[in-house]
Amino acid sequence: MINHEFYIKRCLQIAKNGIGTSRPNPSVGAVITHQNKIIGEGFTSPYGGNHAEVNAVNSVKNKALLKEATIYVTLEPCSHFGKTPPCADLLVKHQFKNVVIGTVDSNDLVAGKGIDRLEKAGINVIVGVLEKECRAHHKRFFTVQEKKRPYIILKWAQTQNGFIAPHFKNEQKPVWISNTYSQQLVHKLRSKEHAILVGTNTAIADNPKLNVRNWSGKNPIRIVLDKSLRIPKSLNVFDGSIKTIVITETKLEDKKNVIFEEINFSENIAKQICVVLQKHKIQSVIIEGGTQTLQTFIDANLWDEATIIIGNVLFEKGIKAPIIKTKKTKEINIQNDVLKFYKND
Amino acid sequence: MINHEFYIKRCLQIAKNGIGTSRPNPSVGAVITHQNKIIGEGFTSPYGGNHAEVNAVNSVKNKALLKEATIYVTLEPCSHFGKTPPCADLLVKHQFKNVVIGTVDSNDLVAGKGIDRLEKAGINVIVGVLEKECRAHHKRFFTVQEKKRPYIILKWAQTQNGFIAPHFKNEQKPVWISNTYSQQLVHKLRSKEHAILVGTNTAIADNPKLNVRNWSGKNPIRIVLDKSLRIPKSLNVFDGSIKTIVITETKLEDKKNVIFEEINFSENIAKQICVVLQKHKIQSVIIEGGTQTLQTFIDANLWDEATIIIGNVLFEKGIKAPIIKTKKTKEINIQNDVLKFYKND
Repeated sequence: MINHEFYIKRCLQIAKNGIGTSRPNPSVGAVITHQNKIIGEGFTSPYGGNHAEVNAVNSVKNKALLKEATIYVTLEPCSHFGKTPPCADLLVKHQFKNVVIGTVDSNDLVAGKGIDRLEKAGINVIVGVLEKECRAHHKRFFTVQEKKRPYIILKWAQTQNGFIAPHFKNEQKPVWISNTYSQQLVHKLRSKEHAILVGTNTAIADNPKLNVRNWSGKNPIRIVLDKSLRIPKSLNVFDGSIKTIVITETKLEDKKNVIFEEINFSENIAKQICVVLQKHKIQSVIIEGGTQTLQTFIDANLWDEATIIIGNVLFEKGIKAPIIKTKKTKEINIQNDVLKFYKND
Repeated sequence: MINHEFYIKRCLQIAKNGIGTSRPNPSVGAVITHQNKIIGEGFTSPYGGNHAEVNAVNSVKNKALLKEATIYVTLEPCSHFGKTPPCADLLVKHQFKNVVIGTVDSNDLVAGKGIDRLEKAGINVIVGVLEKECRAHHKRFFTVQEKKRPYIILKWAQTQNGFIAPHFKNEQKPVWISNTYSQQLVHKLRSKEHAILVGTNTAIADNPKLNVRNWSGKNPIRIVLDKSLRIPKSLNVFDGSIKTIVITETKLEDKKNVIFEEINFSENIAKQICVVLQKHKIQSVIIEGGTQTLQTFIDANLWDEATIIIGNVLFEKGIKAPIIKTKKTKEINIQNDVLKFYKND
């Protein structure tokens, strides 16, 4: 009696370890079983390193067992040369008996070709095991493949009466709407994404670092909108510590870690930004404000998820937060903060 | 390349046809494939008739193909004699090559034994394909097996200001809170369930028929609470047209289609009602009011799903509807009505 879902669940579990480091590769999970016992496991190494299948094969002590073994993977094994040789070839070389695949790839270079190669070598191939869950796990990868744009996450904090910020003038310091635990969660969320984007006013008013501080993980690439180059060069986003892309109408010469990209601000900005991000092979972006920037993406229907933190504070007046009309999929409490999650599909 | 989920999805699709008629048997779906082509299909016939596997086998023209065929089923094939011989034996007799099972049974008479019998006959058995979906499809069956009580659905309509009914005195006719389309949906929901239950006040005030009118399907068994036999014998619930169980403290002699069952109304009523329903092998019950009856089940935490229809009306005063504290899982609109769905898990 074989339970494929059991092992694909384990693949999904270990695949989480590669989120935030494997990009632009998808973070695949792989499990190798022999007579229904796990004899090897692996997930995608940071970019340039091994794919999950290679790590899983390397983890098996007795390679002679592979001829009678089954390998489970969340995503169809690649069939093309990238930074590493094709994984499908590796599985053929070791003469695996069965390959069980969560979901097929939709990358034009792979799509079905990995499976073809395996089947031509006489390997039994089973596809579509917890397919929905595997596609959800690889959401960034599939969005890039299928929509030719990064996976877009909107995130903001607002007061109970719907303000995203007080009026900027005369404010000296950023005002915290969310509590410290919600802020920590934001850093965790940042650590999973490839890029983080803010508009001009937010960059100036909050002077954010846009890095990962209260969680371990890689810093996302910073994207700042700066149509007329109004953001002072002394601010944190220009400190050169992290790769930063400035989306502008007036391209300057690139500096260390600061790259300028021109778009036309009188047309659909969100769409043009997606083109720039796709050019830089950015898999996902978290948009952290302000209202005008968020609204641009909402209006263009260019977003996939939204996380709204409702803090336990009231502002008398200020800038109204955007409004999302989709129904929320989840709601949690972090102390006095309420976090609402939305999906756009 | 084999995609098991694809065929189990088809099993789930056709298994829907048996909901409301197969009880107390679970409504199983079965699909037979040969070289990845569907050559047979079946779902559970009304009680006493064929199980899904038998219908699927019977639908195959060329039985010689079964030796190389795969049968997909939403639920582990039975291994015991009921009204029909064990399905596991049928699959062994036809020497199926593979049996792919959505979820294992948890009926003590089956649990794993069906699989054992298949494996001992040398058949490849795969279990756990869309397991979550298959368990959800067989929710009534699993609740009866595992919780030793029927699957309980709460359903009521309330006004926008939270009233389930106006004050009863001086009211001559039932007042409709929901619109005719929502009412039709209620009849569809009734047609899927084994029993329908109302309290004494609702039976008297609304004089409901509690049958399936605006949809095709079997009438559920009627259950009415009537502690002191206050419900006039002239009312619809006593018309003898449908099997009706009266839960009371004062047992009368059973008549055609009217059965009396005694419980102690000074103790946990909901729990005792579940015992009575289990005794009658009732797989599911939809509780349609009133507030007191619904609240009894909510307080005892004896419910699985709730459907609340919020009609586009206001009452000045009346009886307050119950309140459910779980988060809603779905919300839909039917014209001016809002339908909210809840799950208790």
